[in-house]
Amino acid sequence: MAKTDKVNFSTPSGFPEFLPTEKRLEVHLLDIIRKVYESYGFTPIETPVIERLEVLQAKGNQGDNIIYGISPILPPNRQAEKDKADKSSDNGSEARALKFDQTVPLAAYIARHLNDLTFPFARYQMDMVFRGERAKDGRFRQFRQCDIDVVGRRELSLLYDAQMPAIITEIFEKINIGDFRIRINNRKILTGFFQSVGVAANQIKACIAIIDNLEKIGEVKVKQELEKEGISIEGIDKTIQFINIKGSIDEMLGKLKHLSESMPEAEIFKLGVTELDTVIDGVRNLGVAENRYCIDLAIARGLDYYTGTVYETTLLGHEALGSICSGGRYEELVGVFLGEKMPGVGISIGLTRLISRLLKAGILNPLAATPAQVMVLNMQNDLMPVYLNVSQQLRKAGINVITSFDSRQLSKQFQLAEKQGIQFCVIIGSEEAVSQTAALKDLKTREQIQVSLDDLAAEIQQRLQV
Amino acid sequence: MAKTDKVNFSTPSGFPEFLPTEKRLEVHLLDIIRKVYESYGFTPIETPVIERLEVLQAKGNQGDNIIYGISPILPPNRQAEKDKADKSSDNGSEARALKFDQTVPLAAYIARHLNDLTFPFARYQMDMVFRGERAKDGRFRQFRQCDIDVVGRRELSLLYDAQMPAIITEIFEKINIGDFRIRINNRKILTGFFQSVGVAANQIKACIAIIDNLEKIGEVKVKQELEKEGISIEGIDKTIQFINIKGSIDEMLGKLKHLSESMPEAEIFKLGVTELDTVIDGVRNLGVAENRYCIDLAIARGLDYYTGTVYETTLLGHEALGSICSGGRYEELVGVFLGEKMPGVGISIGLTRLISRLLKAGILNPLAATPAQVMVLNMQNDLMPVYLNVSQQLRKAGINVITSFDSRQLSKQFQLAEKQGIQFCVIIGSEEAVSQTAALKDLKTREQIQVSLDDLAAEIQQRLQV
Repeated sequence: MAKTDKVNFSTPSGFPEFLPTEKRLEVHLLDIIRKVYESYGFTPIETPVIERLEVLQAKGNQGDNIIYGISPILPPNRQAEKDKADKSSDNGSEARALKFDQTVPLAAYIARHLNDLTFPFARYQMDMVFRGERAKDGRFRQFRQCDIDVVGRRELSLLYDAQMPAIITEIFEKINIGDFRIRINNRKILTGFFQSVGVAANQIKACIAIIDNLEKIGEVKVKQELEKEGISIEGIDKTIQFINIKGSIDEMLGKLKHLSESMPEAEIFKLGVTELDTVIDGVRNLGVAENRYCIDLAIARGLDYYTGTVYETTLLGHEALGSICSGGRYEELVGVFLGEKMPGVGISIGLTRLISRLLKAGILNPLAATPAQVMVLNMQNDLMPVYLNVSQQLRKAGINVITSFDSRQLSKQFQLAEKQGIQFCVIIGSEEAVSQTAALKDLKTREQIQVSLDDLAAEIQQRLQV
Repeated sequence: MAKTDKVNFSTPSGFPEFLPTEKRLEVHLLDIIRKVYESYGFTPIETPVIERLEVLQAKGNQGDNIIYGISPILPPNRQAEKDKADKSSDNGSEARALKFDQTVPLAAYIARHLNDLTFPFARYQMDMVFRGERAKDGRFRQFRQCDIDVVGRRELSLLYDAQMPAIITEIFEKINIGDFRIRINNRKILTGFFQSVGVAANQIKACIAIIDNLEKIGEVKVKQELEKEGISIEGIDKTIQFINIKGSIDEMLGKLKHLSESMPEAEIFKLGVTELDTVIDGVRNLGVAENRYCIDLAIARGLDYYTGTVYETTLLGHEALGSICSGGRYEELVGVFLGEKMPGVGISIGLTRLISRLLKAGILNPLAATPAQVMVLNMQNDLMPVYLNVSQQLRKAGINVITSFDSRQLSKQFQLAEKQGIQFCVIIGSEEAVSQTAALKDLKTREQIQVSLDDLAAEIQQRLQV
């Protein structure tokens, strides 16, 4: 066969792909995440990869993202249509682009299907999003985000905020990635605090963004940046003192309530403390272990659409990974196309990046290269009907099976099974075929036993469960 | 909240999206399909949505497809980078586009990871593909294909071809869409037949394409088209006679073997019959019921890369839907980037289109709008700790639960549960809280019973299984 010359068949820069061992891990994690999301009643949706550009830019929150616009490329035999296509709104001139997050599409989805949805609308979405970032370490241009959001019409109970830490905890306990801590804060507390130290209303978002960078840039830099914003030395000192308040949940709530009493004018601060108190109360009633979460006054989430509760999740001992699950409550995001108040609360797991980093750090391991648990070996071609039949019996019992159609010697077939991480080999020669038995070899333990074909499925199932 | 004016928030033409009821059906079908694929040892992969244009066009088989090229759109605050980006190979000038099928990407994937894969390489892939088709009924510009392919190096046993009908059968029996028939043929038989009636080698593919259209255009049109190709009247008559040969599997094989004996020169015909015989033998040994498949000499698959076995699947009584699962064997497709012979065999289910058409035809029904099976109602806010606790107990038992945080009257909450298709409501008032019981209402049967909280999960599980 002639080789097609000179084609660079590598993936475009920033678009890596998983090996089967890694993709199987992703599928496994998606199953876990989906199951937890569904256990709280979140329902799946999927929005198109391609949206109208005006939709994607509606919130003005393209932010720093490079969006990928699309333009049709006609096949050589249809170049004549080009002019027509360029004129047709259906084919060319209406600007469309790839979605860069799942929040704007959620807003559009709700606007598109308002009368078909029930509210509060709790949805999960695990689609790919696309950003033309400069491709550098761990930054992908296509990546999967596993998001949940609950959206209400006009109002939304704070208990939805309380469910988020319970969901995060369940997911990461099931994924078994080690000790983690969910850091909870409320942006109203930060806003109220900055009001109380005399920061002007139009500067508050900038100040919050600065302290949100505390871990990245350090305290000295935070002070400098606050100074650049024109905050007084006293204000800066108070800020540093404030965001460094530490303690158990109860201690933190006590201190915040105490502070709020000493700030008679700070309505927003008080509201923030009350909201946080309600949320923490809900988290407790949901049975989340106290070592899984804390109140951290220094976290704020960069995105300025958050208005209340915010979350970040730190993998203890691996702080450099950054937050592995973040989110918060927002008021003015989802109703953008309808002009209606639609408060929401949500979290997001950047799964592609998380897997890639957890694999690199050795916290997670790739799975076997195949889902097959058993390989039925080919000892002699004339017994193939037996091999096919035994394979089907095992599949009917829920076992994943590869039948070897390989005519090479057994040792080669064993190698192939081992290389793919298959645990069991079933060996049937003419003697076994007559006696309706099989040799079952466990490639993990190197143990080999004789089993009657009738008991084979049960025997394998039992060993798989160990 | 101010409405963002004039934004057309509808999906772009040709990019529909599912409601939750429909998306849940898709998720359910994907689970079924994946499970069957994995039971035969197929392993998941996913290739990037975006590939180099030269990769997508490598096989020259953009065909009639309009490909979506991509071009970065800088955010307003980064327009200055535009010139630079246009010059940089990393950002602009290297042509990239959205994948339009999964076969070319599979070839690229194998080339990219050759040394990390084991062969025969059996993979499944259920990604979205993109084609700039004119959006007309049932034609989408973004759709999910659920593909499997097994690819060998140099050779590949025909028993892989035999597995495909077994896989198709299992999937559609599990989806429970009614009676279907897998039509099997071998393109070598058609090629050999046309040789035998004197059709020139360079015309054979065109003739095969014509008879492949038999169902679409009818016999009269097929005759006309063959005549246009310059086939003799005698040849046309023989062709019509040939593709109309009907009978049971054994009758068909008998007739084909008989024909091949009367064609001493037709090596390719003979080879095709031998291959078909081997494949059918394998299908039988895999235990596929005989009413699920047949030999149909008129099917060929339009795509001219198929070289041997071909499959189409017809839903009986709904022939107008076209083939619901098709595929075949190819020789010169996957090795294109490596210049190596890599025979493969695969099938594809065009899931998005299939779901959309089966829903329209009433063959499949949407699922409930939420995965939640239970709603724990809110009778009085002060019992919320109890509601949260009971909800968590049920979730631990594997039940999907929505806790109602609604403070409105119970009837409204019942309505909300019903509208979303939730089967059970759990009602706990102060009396129940004291006695550690709950009222369990089955919204399907309208039955209501009192259950102790300790037995609640078991009671619901039992009723869900009925």
